[in-house]
Parts: sequence; structure tokens; C-alpha cells
Amino acid sequence: MLIKGPEDEILKKEQAFKIIRSTLDEKGREALYDLTGLAGGFPIKKEDKKLLETYIGPAVYEEKLQKLALEHLGGEKAIAFNRTTSGILATIIALTKPGDKIVHYLPESPSHPSIPESAKIRGAEYLEFDNIKEFHTPPRTSLIFITGATMDHKITEIEEFKKIISLSKKKKIPVMVDDASGARIRTIIYKQPKAIELGADLAITSTDKLMNGPRGGILTGKTRLVNKIKTIAYKFGLEAQPPLIAAMVRALEEFEPSKILKAIKIRDEVHKKLKKAFKGFQKTPTGVMIRPEEIKKEIRRHNLKTRLSPKDTSYLWAMLLLQEYGIITIPAAGMPGASPTLRLDFSAPDAQRLKPDQITKILEETFQKLLDT
Amino acid sequence: MLIKGPEDEILKKEQAFKIIRSTLDEKGREALYDLTGLAGGFPIKKEDKKLLETYIGPAVYEEKLQKLALEHLGGEKAIAFNRTTSGILATIIALTKPGDKIVHYLPESPSHPSIPESAKIRGAEYLEFDNIKEFHTPPRTSLIFITGATMDHKITEIEEFKKIISLSKKKKIPVMVDDASGARIRTIIYKQPKAIELGADLAITSTDKLMNGPRGGILTGKTRLVNKIKTIAYKFGLEAQPPLIAAMVRALEEFEPSKILKAIKIRDEVHKKLKKAFKGFQKTPTGVMIRPEEIKKEIRRHNLKTRLSPKDTSYLWAMLLLQEYGIITIPAAGMPGASPTLRLDFSAPDAQRLKPDQITKILEETFQKLLDT
Repeated sequence: MLIKGPEDEILKKEQAFKIIRSTLDEKGREALYDLTGLAGGFPIKKEDKKLLETYIGPAVYEEKLQKLALEHLGGEKAIAFNRTTSGILATIIALTKPGDKIVHYLPESPSHPSIPESAKIRGAEYLEFDNIKEFHTPPRTSLIFITGATMDHKITEIEEFKKIISLSKKKKIPVMVDDASGARIRTIIYKQPKAIELGADLAITSTDKLMNGPRGGILTGKTRLVNKIKTIAYKFGLEAQPPLIAAMVRALEEFEPSKILKAIKIRDEVHKKLKKAFKGFQKTPTGVMIRPEEIKKEIRRHNLKTRLSPKDTSYLWAMLLLQEYGIITIPAAGMPGASPTLRLDFSAPDAQRLKPDQITKILEETFQKLLDT
Repeated sequence: MLIKGPEDEILKKEQAFKIIRSTLDEKGREALYDLTGLAGGFPIKKEDKKLLETYIGPAVYEEKLQKLALEHLGGEKAIAFNRTTSGILATIIALTKPGDKIVHYLPESPSHPSIPESAKIRGAEYLEFDNIKEFHTPPRTSLIFITGATMDHKITEIEEFKKIISLSKKKKIPVMVDDASGARIRTIIYKQPKAIELGADLAITSTDKLMNGPRGGILTGKTRLVNKIKTIAYKFGLEAQPPLIAAMVRALEEFEPSKILKAIKIRDEVHKKLKKAFKGFQKTPTGVMIRPEEIKKEIRRHNLKTRLSPKDTSYLWAMLLLQEYGIITIPAAGMPGASPTLRLDFSAPDAQRLKPDQITKILEETFQKLLDT
């Protein structure tokens, strides 16, 4: 075993950082391909930086965000948050009281922790359903959440939305759709309407999920509710700061649904081509992955014995990808404790600069090098 | 009256925005002097933007921030927050329980709302003292706050710090110093030690107050406490995002205590020179100001009658400063409802490009124009 514990993982990570920084310095950003799918975008322009450093900057981007956010999500008014999670906290504080009930429907339990944890801080009771037949709102329910899509593309069906929203309207309980990735997965891949068009009062999305924005959230909906939430946001420091808002504005301006469809097309092509040389690659929502145990099996298929642990084979392959081709993945650059699965995400903007053939060839060549070491 | 209500204020503000944007486009950022004292700095460099858009960016700036934050504030570990307010919320959630008591000492009541409001959300009882003789900690006090300095430079004296901190150590209650502006006002202007050096367990400061960073907060202190606070920060989305952390890093790197002392020197010189031509200018902590009523009096002293309201005279003067010299102030560019007092803040980075003589001359010339209109 090469990597025995957290200390070795730190050394490995630092080695990766060194390669990335020297590549940046010597060859420029174009020589790197960040396929982690986890690099937040920060697409501000030179003129944005200038304007941001004046008193009026915030107001200018605030105004632009309003327009673009409502186009993207629908609704009457928008507010940008430091994170989708802080937007959910603000919503729960603004629209519920201690002792109230918060009901959450999602395609598959468990929920992202932000909803139950915020309910706990508020002193509200939290109920979760992932079976529409069981869904109901007990007395004193003051807020309903629907999760639009989970990160592995399980989505709430239109019929489920309609059932919950019509029930909520009858009982006059506001409905908030947590559409962190769903605002794009549901609408672009599954052709569903926007959450607001389905009758939701509020919707929130993450600007770093399936789009090239910074980590952060945008919430839109009914003016009366958004105003209440905004008051809470500023009271507790939960809102997005102007530089993030400027980056969100640029990300929304540059947003292209076709890029997501292209990512899925690349994934399918790459996966098909990889099948010829490998057995262990699986599809992810917008890319491909291979688990450490599968990498070890691939090596054995070439009648080679190795004393490397499955994890080590993944780390080594990831380091070869980085060193030879500037491809950044989590097994190379991840923090200690990060998943050792080798994942390539094609929804990352850098993936647009690689062709399916190239990707397959790079994986085959670096695997050959892995066999030779 | 020229400006009758919010609608007129919006038109006035939009006129100012137009001038600022066309100045930026035609003459560049150097032709503007933002003396509002409220423009957050965003001093990231070209290479920062490149690195930020890779997976490793956040880790690189996180590490740099640790080092610089501990140099600036002292302490064992640091965490950056979206706002000082969100840092206070995280601290209160992490270190107190519902039913506990939070005690706050400050040079002058009332407190910034962030502490009492966070206490309320937590379900903790809040007690406030601005008289050291009355200060005490009732049973079940689990957290003590001390405000280091108010924005108008009222500071907590060393003896008061010592009394509260020694009491807290006896009772084993953690002490957090809200040093939003105090981390610089107290140490640089009043030559006091850092809060941590005075024995505080935690200290937090605002990176946009008396330094050229973005709006945001940095908290440092005992590792054991910072770890607890960090867990809460990430759980609720209260932490600063990587682009803000990069800007904080640059602001700390470029931070020069001498600039603050220089701002005060400029203020004193400008104030002295202005006394020859005007009667109504007053000193602020790092600049000068004149109230609308005083502007109207100045006009009368020149034996001129005007039908303009005091507010209008301030708006007009501010617009002349912007149009003729690119000087941005709140009466020109502020949102509806902002204070109509004409303030010039010399701690703003743009002020470093103006000499006291220039400033006085500009004020005299634009006032002459105001008389001529």
C-alpha cells in the first residue's frame, strides 16, 4: 500500500496541488481540465470587478439578477443566497413559528440535512414522506417542501407535484420547491415545467449545480413571501454578497440548456466506447465513474498481479491523468477522506473542450501506463 | 423642492448611476473617487480568478486565510464568514442552548441587532450592559460578548476587558469579542492589544471595516470552540465562499495600519482647512460630514435665498461633486431613504489618491457652483 492513512492522503493531495499550480503558471488555465464537477464557476468579467468596487456595484448586479432569476425560475421577486442551505434556513425562520409543523415530500428519503436541521433550530416539527400515498399535512402545518430532484436524478413526478400543490392551496399552506439541481434536471432532461409554473409559491435552486455559477442559491416566488424571507436573510447575514451575485448574473447569462444535453450525449458516447476496453465503468447523471475495486479487477484481467490496494490504483490512475493530461479528479486532488472512486463529470465547463474520442483515448493510455508502473 | 418622494429619489439615484457607469466606460476607474466608505473592496488578482475556477482554489485560499487571519487577530484557528452577523449566529447556535443566558457588554447601548436577534432564534435569554459597574453573569450564562468598538469610535477600555475576562475565566464561560471595526480602531488608533491577547476565547472582525476587503467576517480563537462553530457554519450555509475568501486574503496581505492613521491625518487637515470657508463641517471617525440644514445655512451666509429644501441642497451638491470630479457620496448614489448628510470618508482606498488641498478646493468650487445654480 502506498497511501496508508490521512497523512499520506495529505501528501498525495499536496503533490496534486503542486502539479495544478505549476500547470497554471507554465501552461495556463487551458492546459487544465477540471472534471470533478465540483469546481464552482466564477465567470465574472474584467468590467465586473471594476464596478463591484464602487458603491453602486451591488445595486447594478442586484437589478440584473432580478430579471435573469425570474426568467430562469419564474416567480414575482428574487433573492440570492450565500448557499441554498442558508436560503432554506431563512425561509423556515420567516414562514414558520416554534411548534409548527413542516412537511417534506421527496422522491427518495433521506432529505438533504438543511431542511430537518433548520426545522430543529426553529423549534418546528419535521415530517418526511417519499411515498405520495402516505403524504398528508397534519394540523398546524405551516410550510410544505417538495424536493424537485435528488442529485442522482430521482425526480418528483408531475402528478405528485399537482397532488401536493392542490392540497396545499386548499389548506392555504405555502409550498416551497427545493429545486437545487431540479430546476435544470427536471426541466431540461425530463421536460417538466418550472416549479412556479406547477403552482409552487416559492422555488430555490443552486447556481453551481448543472450550471457554471458559484456555490450559492437563488430563491424566487410570491413577492409577499419573498419580502418576509429577505428581511430574515439580511437580519442573520444569509444573503449572497455582491461578487457572488455578479458571478450568478454571468452564469445565468451564459446558461445554455443544450450544454447539459451535450454532457449527457458525451457521457453515453464515452461509456459506449469505454465498454470495449474496460468492464468496470458505470454511468453517473452527467458522467462516468469506476470504483477502486473495479480498477483492481481491470488490472487482473491483464494477467498482472499488483500489491497495490484498490484505493492506491485509483489514486495512481488519477495522478497519471493529472500529470499527463491536466485532468483534475477527486482521487488526485480531493481532501483526506474524499471518495476514492474515479469520476469524470462532463457537465463541467472544461469538458466542452474535450471530444468523446479524446477522453476514451486518454483513459486507455493512462491505464496502460498504470499497468507499466 | 426638487426631490419630493421616493420616486424622485429613484430618478436622482438612476441619474447618478448613469454618470458613474459612463465615467467608468469613458475614463476608467481612476476617474472615480468613491468616498462613501461603504464600497466593499474586492481586490482579487487575475491569477486568483483562474485558480478559483478549479477544484483546488478553495483549499489554497483557505490555507492562506488561516495564516493571515491568525496574524491579524491572534488565536489558534480561523474561519471566514459570509458576514460578521452570520458568524455571530453560528457562535450562538454552537455555544449556547435554549434557556441559557447570553450576556453582552458594550461601550454604549444599543447593541448591533445581530447578537440579540440570534439569541432570540436560539431561545436564549439576552442581557445587555453598557455600565461596567452593573455587569454580572447570572446563573446559566453560557456565553459572554464584548463589543470592542462602536462604529463612532466608542471603545471598551482595557480595564473593562480585564474585569470581564477574569470574571469569565473564574466562571469558565467563553468570551467572544465582537471586534467588527474594533480589531483595527482599538489596536491602531487607541494602541490596545488584540482581543485574543487580552484573554478572549474568540474574536470576530469585519473585513470591510477600516480595511479594503469584501463585506464578510473572520472569526478566530481556541481550536476546540472554532471547530464547534465551523460545524454549525457549514450546516446552515453561513461560511464565506471561496471568491470572498480570496478577496479577504488579498485585503489582509495589503492591509497597512499606516493607511488608517493617514486617513485620520487627512481628516484633521481637511477639517481645519474647511473651517476657513465653511462653518457646518464636522469630523467623523475617518472623514468629514455636513448635515443638510447646515448646507442651507452656508447658502444663507452668502446672502442668498433659495427655495430648495435642505435635503435638495445636499443632493445637488453631491451631484455636482460626482459630475465635475467623479466623487461618489451617498446623497447622490444612495438608495431611497438613505441619509441625506454629505459625508466624505478618507479611509476609502480612493481617498489615498487625493490630497487634503485638492479635497478642500473641490468642495469650495462645487459649493460655488451650487450658489450659482
